[in-house]
Amino acid sequence: MPATDAPEPTAAAAEPPSSYFVQSLERGLEVIRAFGADHPSMTLTDVARVTGLTRATARRFLLTLTDLGYVRTDGKHFELTARVLRLGYAFVSSHDLPQLAEPVLEELSAAVGESASASVLDGAWVVYIARVHTRRIMRVGISVGTRFPAYATSMGRVLLAHGEGDDDAAALAAAGPFEALTPHTLTDPARLAAELARVREQGWSLVDQELELGLSSLAVPVRGPDGRVVAAVNVSMSAGGAGGAAPAERVEDLLPHLRAAAEQVEEALRLQR
Amino acid sequence: MPATDAPEPTAAAAEPPSSYFVQSLERGLEVIRAFGADHPSMTLTDVARVTGLTRATARRFLLTLTDLGYVRTDGKHFELTARVLRLGYAFVSSHDLPQLAEPVLEELSAAVGESASASVLDGAWVVYIARVHTRRIMRVGISVGTRFPAYATSMGRVLLAHGEGDDDAAALAAAGPFEALTPHTLTDPARLAAELARVREQGWSLVDQELELGLSSLAVPVRGPDGRVVAAVNVSMSAGGAGGAAPAERVEDLLPHLRAAAEQVEEALRLQR
Repeated sequence: MPATDAPEPTAAAAEPPSSYFVQSLERGLEVIRAFGADHPSMTLTDVARVTGLTRATARRFLLTLTDLGYVRTDGKHFELTARVLRLGYAFVSSHDLPQLAEPVLEELSAAVGESASASVLDGAWVVYIARVHTRRIMRVGISVGTRFPAYATSMGRVLLAHGEGDDDAAALAAAGPFEALTPHTLTDPARLAAELARVREQGWSLVDQELELGLSSLAVPVRGPDGRVVAAVNVSMSAGGAGGAAPAERVEDLLPHLRAAAEQVEEALRLQR
Repeated sequence: MPATDAPEPTAAAAEPPSSYFVQSLERGLEVIRAFGADHPSMTLTDVARVTGLTRATARRFLLTLTDLGYVRTDGKHFELTARVLRLGYAFVSSHDLPQLAEPVLEELSAAVGESASASVLDGAWVVYIARVHTRRIMRVGISVGTRFPAYATSMGRVLLAHGEGDDDAAALAAAGPFEALTPHTLTDPARLAAELARVREQGWSLVDQELELGLSSLAVPVRGPDGRVVAAVNVSMSAGGAGGAAPAERVEDLLPHLRAAAEQVEEALRLQR
């Protein structure tokens, strides 16, 4: 597993791995991903800079995406259109997990009075596939598709701890040190590996303000019909909650609700087969 | 505007419109979109059939997408991974509207006790960009990225009615007849054009069981800082509600809440500038 803050391969840097490889597709997807919170609207020059493509190449991709309706332009600035959602929606609609998890998360959130989420791993990242939030929690702008570095999140640790064999944990120990997102973040690979072993043993992970100050979360795994861990569900809470209870003191109360939710999703996955 | 049920151009049918056009990108995006509720897991043969590509071409795209981590395979079956969400998320994170709308929709939903949504047009379709639902409504599996034919939805009619000039309405009258999704669906282009004129005049649209039996919704437009309509927000409700009130009788109660929500989003868009 690569260190989570390593730059991802860019279109310019990637070598075509083989004769079948369609580099134009890789580059086009890079152009779509170049847009985002930091670059909602870009000129041709911006896109070339962000993607590492030449201006001529970036222009061909932008005009193609405009023809296809994924991008619109005023002649100078380019931005994504809602058609791009069709691509992400292909994932959501083709997998049972997001649909099955959502009603369960709603019950869980209502029962414990906190936000509840489900996520899967995408490389070194956790990606939210369903989320139900309470109105009282500070808004952190999390929605389906949001991703965070797996090492600093409760769902990420559950997924890394229950990965295929010990490969993930071993690779993790070789990677790092990891970025300290807060003063509490575990950044030492050996300590992180020990924590993952503990998570695997106890079947849950509590992460207290390692991703963001003031935010804590508790996660458990969700297993598919074949017994493999396919997702994680969590409850996230304010670290200094309204009731004044520290997150560690709430584990005993929250865990039965979380486990019941995980079991409901597991049962739904079995019935879906 | 094309008729909403006209087949969309496929990779096989499309002519490269110009020398700059990157056909490989179009085809690759078609392959991603070929997955979905009807085809969550496909063999190479399935993908070739659904996309109209040759097996050799489909294979190159599938292997490229697998190398890039957007698709995974057991050697025979292919399915999308959560990485695909990064593409849709590029849209969500690059636009203010989804983030700004969500807390407003939460307040709206809590105030009226019904599900609330925001959407934009993608060609002849409305696409959900934010949604908050109550637990008591029947689950219709709607999430961000879901799309419906614009002509049969309240948000679609608001967006068509307030489009650029009269082009949309005129094009609509030339298109159709439209598919009757329920016995109540307006399918006659002339009657639909008259309804759009009425919606434009009154500033809201009520659609009663034209998309799905038992489901009704009321929508109003959201204007950007330049006065153009950029989105629609709606409240959806059971047609034979718990209180027994018919949807038409609830317009007077619901409309002030909806308009207040639209104004809040408009205000947030102005401040965001």
